[in-house]
Amino acid sequence: MGTRRDVLGGIGAGVLAMLGGSTAQAAPKRKLGYAVVGLGYYATRQIMPNLKDCEFAELKALVSGTPAKLEKYGAEYGIPKSHWYDYQNYDRIRDNPDIDIVYVVLPNAMHAEYSIRASQAGKHVLCEKPMAVSVAECQAMIAAAKKAGKKLMIGYRCHFEPYNLKAIEAVKSGALGKPTLIFAEHGFYASPNQWRLDKALSGGGSMMDIGIYSLNAARYLSGEEPVEVSAMEVTDRSDPRFKTVEDRIDWQFRFPSGLIADCVSSYSSNHNHYRVTGRKGWVELEPATNYEGQEMWTRLDGKREQVVLPKPAKNQFVRQLDHLPECIMSGREPIVSGEEGLRDMRLIEAVYRAAREHRAITLA
Amino acid sequence: MGTRRDVLGGIGAGVLAMLGGSTAQAAPKRKLGYAVVGLGYYATRQIMPNLKDCEFAELKALVSGTPAKLEKYGAEYGIPKSHWYDYQNYDRIRDNPDIDIVYVVLPNAMHAEYSIRASQAGKHVLCEKPMAVSVAECQAMIAAAKKAGKKLMIGYRCHFEPYNLKAIEAVKSGALGKPTLIFAEHGFYASPNQWRLDKALSGGGSMMDIGIYSLNAARYLSGEEPVEVSAMEVTDRSDPRFKTVEDRIDWQFRFPSGLIADCVSSYSSNHNHYRVTGRKGWVELEPATNYEGQEMWTRLDGKREQVVLPKPAKNQFVRQLDHLPECIMSGREPIVSGEEGLRDMRLIEAVYRAAREHRAITLA
Repeated sequence: MGTRRDVLGGIGAGVLAMLGGSTAQAAPKRKLGYAVVGLGYYATRQIMPNLKDCEFAELKALVSGTPAKLEKYGAEYGIPKSHWYDYQNYDRIRDNPDIDIVYVVLPNAMHAEYSIRASQAGKHVLCEKPMAVSVAECQAMIAAAKKAGKKLMIGYRCHFEPYNLKAIEAVKSGALGKPTLIFAEHGFYASPNQWRLDKALSGGGSMMDIGIYSLNAARYLSGEEPVEVSAMEVTDRSDPRFKTVEDRIDWQFRFPSGLIADCVSSYSSNHNHYRVTGRKGWVELEPATNYEGQEMWTRLDGKREQVVLPKPAKNQFVRQLDHLPECIMSGREPIVSGEEGLRDMRLIEAVYRAAREHRAITLA
Repeated sequence: MGTRRDVLGGIGAGVLAMLGGSTAQAAPKRKLGYAVVGLGYYATRQIMPNLKDCEFAELKALVSGTPAKLEKYGAEYGIPKSHWYDYQNYDRIRDNPDIDIVYVVLPNAMHAEYSIRASQAGKHVLCEKPMAVSVAECQAMIAAAKKAGKKLMIGYRCHFEPYNLKAIEAVKSGALGKPTLIFAEHGFYASPNQWRLDKALSGGGSMMDIGIYSLNAARYLSGEEPVEVSAMEVTDRSDPRFKTVEDRIDWQFRFPSGLIADCVSSYSSNHNHYRVTGRKGWVELEPATNYEGQEMWTRLDGKREQVVLPKPAKNQFVRQLDHLPECIMSGREPIVSGEEGLRDMRLIEAVYRAAREHRAITLA
């Protein structure tokens, strides 16, 4: 156990393509400007610091309902007052040519409105996941971006994270043999009194917030779309955290190839882990989808080994933030488009329904 | 990672009680005699060699339909011809006072018949798991043993294995905090052309054979009985191995405490692993239920550590084989009685039904 040879046979072309910066033929001419909407923890601690390291992106505007935050981060990032917005004058971003992309980092229930208004203002949109709180909202967001002729991308950063890409490649390459099981578990203990626990803002509980990592991983690891889902929810409604949203919800996906994914979502325990098992062995990540610190293990031919990848030139945040400008300038679709967010939302609704109706739901 | 301190706080009284031999007040006077029925791989490679190391048990008779096996093992273990039986004269064990216990190690579909006939012959019975192939058969076995006034025990050897006992204790002690998830996976690649793949002999596929380890672990780790089950089966019926039995079947148990168990059973990939997660961390075994080589890991307060237990005086096989004689001589019920086997069989039938009907089954 524990040697650091890459038993999966070195980093493949697929991962390399994602790890690099621009490719010569699609090299953008300039950095595109981001407006960040919602100056909470994730925006200010993760997104904005990483924007500094981008090759094709820079922070150009701030949107917040809290004047003190605009003052603070405006000063810290050198954003002039002319590029500060609140939720009343938000639509005036239309008149600011420095803003190419609006990154919506608001509570889930506000994603649709602020993404659609950005599209209507003629801006490209990067929206955090979950894309919205219903399939109908996702469809409206896609329609608005299409009507504006602008791009819409969802913030699935794991699609830009080397260990996750390596795991995808391990499955695809056949190194594991025919896959039979994906087990994916995500959760954390949600502290009381936060917007996540208010359905009006979050649209749902652990599933919307952290379970979506298990769900999306099941799809990107399998490379398939599920055809059946069954689910089980457990929520202690006497716990003051769970007046409006669910705590635990676990589900099973059946994929066309015969692969089953067993997925976990929790607001009462810590989980950040997945394992894909095939006839020849397995690959696992733990932590799997954290901001950093991924660890990868394989068992092939009965031998357990750790896989360590070289540190990439750009971390997952930088790569994600650079991806949308690259797509805009090269005319390509983002690898995690609005359609990707819509697919997850359809499945989230199906998981909820399967749990509520205590029966398997067949997916179209 | 990887230090060997026992973070679970030393081996507890519960485990110690199981690890030891007899206790003074219940010390048996003599070794009881076993007849082993069915001289296949498990009987001849695991049970019979371990009987030599028993404190309260010894091999006294052999039952097989293959004369060459009786010759071979009769010579090897010094069992006289007078103590050899076949399936025709099997009931004559009644007249052999050297046989106290009949250990049924036949294909699953023969468990009920040969256990009941042993009870009717006035013998105590140890029967391999699964106890039988239906709830009705299990009930008949229990009734036969009761009528004979003899004991009936099922071969759940993990209940005698130190790491499994330690995991049970870790959950019970509260070391993990309130448990939220049990994930238990068991499977192996079943080679073609064996009795396991013939439903007439096995009663079912991976679930009956190896999935039962996930199922029983979910019960002994939680210390609870499930109240709801949902399940999903995937079997490639074009695979010649699966003309009559299932390949993959995964299920979810809901327990009264709110704990969910996600369980895996496979005849197409190797799995031998479980993890119990609570609010404070987790405990896992991999391999979990093998004949030997268990490895135990915990993560408590974010710190991952290996737990290594002292080598027990008796291995799980010896302890199991000694347990029934101890119970007989002290008048106690075996910790894994016929009732335990019946509970599992009820759940197996519910798992099959949930998968077949694509809906959750509420358990009485």
